[in-house]
Amino acid sequence: MTTPAGAPRRAPRRVHVIGIGAGSPGHVTGQAVAAMREVDVFLVADKGSAKDELVAVRRGICEQFLADGTYQLVTVTDPHRGPDAERDSAAYKAGVDAWHRARADRYAEVVDGLPEGAVVGFLVWGDPAFYDSTIRIVDAIGERTPLAVSVVPGISAIQVLAAEHRIVLNAVGQPVHITTGRRLVDEWHPDLGAVVVMLDGALACRALLDRAPDLVIHWGAYLGLPQQVLRSGRLADVIDELVALRGALRAEHGWVMDTYVLTLPADAPG
Amino acid sequence: MTTPAGAPRRAPRRVHVIGIGAGSPGHVTGQAVAAMREVDVFLVADKGSAKDELVAVRRGICEQFLADGTYQLVTVTDPHRGPDAERDSAAYKAGVDAWHRARADRYAEVVDGLPEGAVVGFLVWGDPAFYDSTIRIVDAIGERTPLAVSVVPGISAIQVLAAEHRIVLNAVGQPVHITTGRRLVDEWHPDLGAVVVMLDGALACRALLDRAPDLVIHWGAYLGLPQQVLRSGRLADVIDELVALRGALRAEHGWVMDTYVLTLPADAPG
Repeated sequence: MTTPAGAPRRAPRRVHVIGIGAGSPGHVTGQAVAAMREVDVFLVADKGSAKDELVAVRRGICEQFLADGTYQLVTVTDPHRGPDAERDSAAYKAGVDAWHRARADRYAEVVDGLPEGAVVGFLVWGDPAFYDSTIRIVDAIGERTPLAVSVVPGISAIQVLAAEHRIVLNAVGQPVHITTGRRLVDEWHPDLGAVVVMLDGALACRALLDRAPDLVIHWGAYLGLPQQVLRSGRLADVIDELVALRGALRAEHGWVMDTYVLTLPADAPG
Repeated sequence: MTTPAGAPRRAPRRVHVIGIGAGSPGHVTGQAVAAMREVDVFLVADKGSAKDELVAVRRGICEQFLADGTYQLVTVTDPHRGPDAERDSAAYKAGVDAWHRARADRYAEVVDGLPEGAVVGFLVWGDPAFYDSTIRIVDAIGERTPLAVSVVPGISAIQVLAAEHRIVLNAVGQPVHITTGRRLVDEWHPDLGAVVVMLDGALACRALLDRAPDLVIHWGAYLGLPQQVLRSGRLADVIDELVALRGALRAEHGWVMDTYVLTLPADAPG
């Protein structure tokens, strides 16, 4: 940072990255509410997609926990994200990086335009520590303008999945592996223990049935939301129903967010 | 279940398994408070150990969120747990199973002695889905007396670790592996992604330095509690300090609970 000669060095701007849980206002913690009450301006990405419902949930959580007129909600339009290169490729990673940089530039501009002393908040779906880009974006903003960042954890969809199915994820003394649909088929091995799969648009787990016909799945969509749907069973028995159900839900709601965990009977959870 | 001839079949007893987070009252969610308010009798394991501080935290959370006289807190003395067999052995697993059964017998006896309609609660440190035996015990009680169980997720120490260090656990599109100190050295491989280690009494990660001298550690003890301690750095640079610090903390407090995440610079979190 360069500071104009003679200008007072500004104190770092306070930023709260706040996990609000997986959709239910009941997931919000006291720590999250306390942080939200300190925030003057919430920045919300406008993805211009059917996921506007997720923006609406954030707005609803603000209205439920905060007094009118004590905060602003500012939407920041997301930069256009070009067509995806093959995932796991260098081009894919470069594309994601460039998009994060463009997004950080926009946010930094908005943040710099706020009154001195205004506290900025980001409301993160689930937990900021799992498959969420907010902390990376805030770190990138911090390279452009000085920030003092605090992070509040939130209930993730993974945890709601386990709670609603009333299961322990790990077998006694065994591991839990969390991965993406793209990596699942290459990565899966019985030694990984329970395998939680995120960001899987195509139920990639079907391809594991040849290798592991006894896999058990616990699946959930819209976890924590009123339209939550759960299914479980032997993967071989339920995969066709799940694929059909997932398609029907996407058609009905315009979007679907789901996650699942795969276990083998020897280490079946619960 | 057999029911005495002519006796009315009892409705299943309601049980709430409630994750209360990693120690800070600020971790408690609205859903957890709502479930706590429905509970008449909280059952708490009395482990007769220095970890009584953890029972005291549970008691404090009840006092903070519930009105006096609306609930009871009943401690159930844990059955004696014999000397540990070698972990990962069949004898170890059998020992854990037998201990869980003995514990379930005691709890079932206490539960059966409660007035009909009384709602039972278990307050679980962290999240019931991760390395906690409560759901397994409740399932075992349910084999002895009919239960209607609900589970409320809670903020886990893993999440507090990440939040306090202000890191994302996964690198972009990469996995997260959660395992135990006992398994870490056999299991560790760069392809696992970020590796979170639980239940490690001996900082087993030191043994990885030969294979992976560039490992980075983010470590935390008493996460969420007032005495929380954080450290991070290149594992090779900080391991000696961590071992000494962990010993000093255990001497000072009588117990220590800690967890950490290992990453490689290529997939360093944040």
